[in-house]
Amino acid sequence: MRVTITGASGFVGQALCKQLLAATDWALTLLDLNLDWASSLSAERITLVEGALQDLSVVNRAIGDGVDILFHLAALPGGAAEKDPVLSRQVNLDATLDMIELAAERSEVPRIVFTSTIAVLGAPLPDPVNDQCRITPAMTYGSHKAMVELALADMHRRGLIDAVSIRLPGIVARPAVASGLKSAFMSNLFHQLKAHQPFVSPVSPEATLWLMSVNQCVNNLVHASTLDSSLMPSTRVVTLPALRITMGSLIETVVEQCSAAQNSVSYQPENDLEAHFGTHPPLLTPAAEAAGFWHDGSIANLVESALASL
Amino acid sequence: MRVTITGASGFVGQALCKQLLAATDWALTLLDLNLDWASSLSAERITLVEGALQDLSVVNRAIGDGVDILFHLAALPGGAAEKDPVLSRQVNLDATLDMIELAAERSEVPRIVFTSTIAVLGAPLPDPVNDQCRITPAMTYGSHKAMVELALADMHRRGLIDAVSIRLPGIVARPAVASGLKSAFMSNLFHQLKAHQPFVSPVSPEATLWLMSVNQCVNNLVHASTLDSSLMPSTRVVTLPALRITMGSLIETVVEQCSAAQNSVSYQPENDLEAHFGTHPPLLTPAAEAAGFWHDGSIANLVESALASL
Repeated sequence: MRVTITGASGFVGQALCKQLLAATDWALTLLDLNLDWASSLSAERITLVEGALQDLSVVNRAIGDGVDILFHLAALPGGAAEKDPVLSRQVNLDATLDMIELAAERSEVPRIVFTSTIAVLGAPLPDPVNDQCRITPAMTYGSHKAMVELALADMHRRGLIDAVSIRLPGIVARPAVASGLKSAFMSNLFHQLKAHQPFVSPVSPEATLWLMSVNQCVNNLVHASTLDSSLMPSTRVVTLPALRITMGSLIETVVEQCSAAQNSVSYQPENDLEAHFGTHPPLLTPAAEAAGFWHDGSIANLVESALASL
Repeated sequence: MRVTITGASGFVGQALCKQLLAATDWALTLLDLNLDWASSLSAERITLVEGALQDLSVVNRAIGDGVDILFHLAALPGGAAEKDPVLSRQVNLDATLDMIELAAERSEVPRIVFTSTIAVLGAPLPDPVNDQCRITPAMTYGSHKAMVELALADMHRRGLIDAVSIRLPGIVARPAVASGLKSAFMSNLFHQLKAHQPFVSPVSPEATLWLMSVNQCVNNLVHASTLDSSLMPSTRVVTLPALRITMGSLIETVVEQCSAAQNSVSYQPENDLEAHFGTHPPLLTPAAEAAGFWHDGSIANLVESALASL
């Protein structure tokens, strides 16, 4: 199996690489701007390609003579895309399509695993969210992801690729960040409570979130790379199942599993964060479940898995 | 008013140019591969730019120092796009976005009137079609149109343009064509019955079509260029109202208005044409109606208007 992973240095990308090295004998080509973290990985099975997705010579090396599976995780993330929509078009739309077209040209109907996002669904979210929802993205990042979903469905229909696009919910726990990234609180609560530091929640205990552990996300990515193509809907995209969790029950479970002090947590809800991250309606994902995707199963499992990945 | 019309030599484009010359004092810049037909138009109000949309120097001239209104009708049409998806991406996606970005850069929030298509809705169509339908295009043409709809909605949200995307139904009567264009029968019936020639319908009398006369289409385009922006939904796209007509009642009306012989019409339904063009479900378009768009009003009006445009 010739497998290329773009965005390999990202939080999800690194976890995916490690799981594939442990569980398969696949030859992996990794693409990212900087791959220092991967220099210690088994050199025989890994090819490192450092550079930007917009650089055709870089993409040429990452695709080589062709691929059997392309995990396309690389993207200019949401906040950065919103600040620089021109770069978002270059990376998240143009270079993404160029790369997948090149992979299609050089390979025999490669499986393309494309990480899309629940941001394609827009804001405010319909209630409930299900597989019939209209796509009305409210940010540039979600718009470009939705456009690529459409392009991949069409390339699949034409028989050029075997497309599996999956929309990811919030993934925890990301590495601790000091920055002002608005959604950082969802991951920081794991870091701070595990370290027995106080945690101030910027959303109320009643806030509802859609979450998945990074390990479960990787399980779903691996499943996306090997599943029977006929299980996917003709749109070739599914919204992944996610646990819908209240902030109160999430914190309670983290506190318990970390043996943290009950009084280490306080709530100071901020209106805009509550509106953006704390009002996720019920999520129905029959198409994804029929294709074999799944969430963490329970809050306890999700928290255990997220804490183990820190 | 500085107004640019791309695809100005097309069937709808020519009719739009003529109506704008007759009803406004706008200065028009026309862009198309060949503009011979326009050489007799009032030279003082018209600037002709011949060339391809993919040619940046051509687009540069068509946008000039900026535009107040850009009618973007140019496209590689459905059948051609399906045969050459690479060219469809170049014209219907990349060059289209490049041009609109250039217009945004050089102008003060220009009104962009983009002609999308009911082909974004896919096949088979949901029943009924309404404003909440998912977009699941079944052909490359519809996929690229849907992608541009999303891009324009995002550019509008960012305040760069004032986007009005309208999805056109079948427009009649197109110029008579001898080619094997599958949908040609919808227009040819007008030409042949007006000329008192026999007409063989390749769909049954019960076949249902969504239709609009070219004059009504132009009325809607002009409305799209001047309407109060706040009347449009946040998606910045509406499916135009269209009359849902059975082939039998359409033919009956054309025969009557042309004083054609009843026995000049026969039916030889073909399964694939019936499935593709004769199974249009009820069409509900409250968003378009709220924004002031409208269909021909009655079959009699539609037929009269279509015959007058031959």
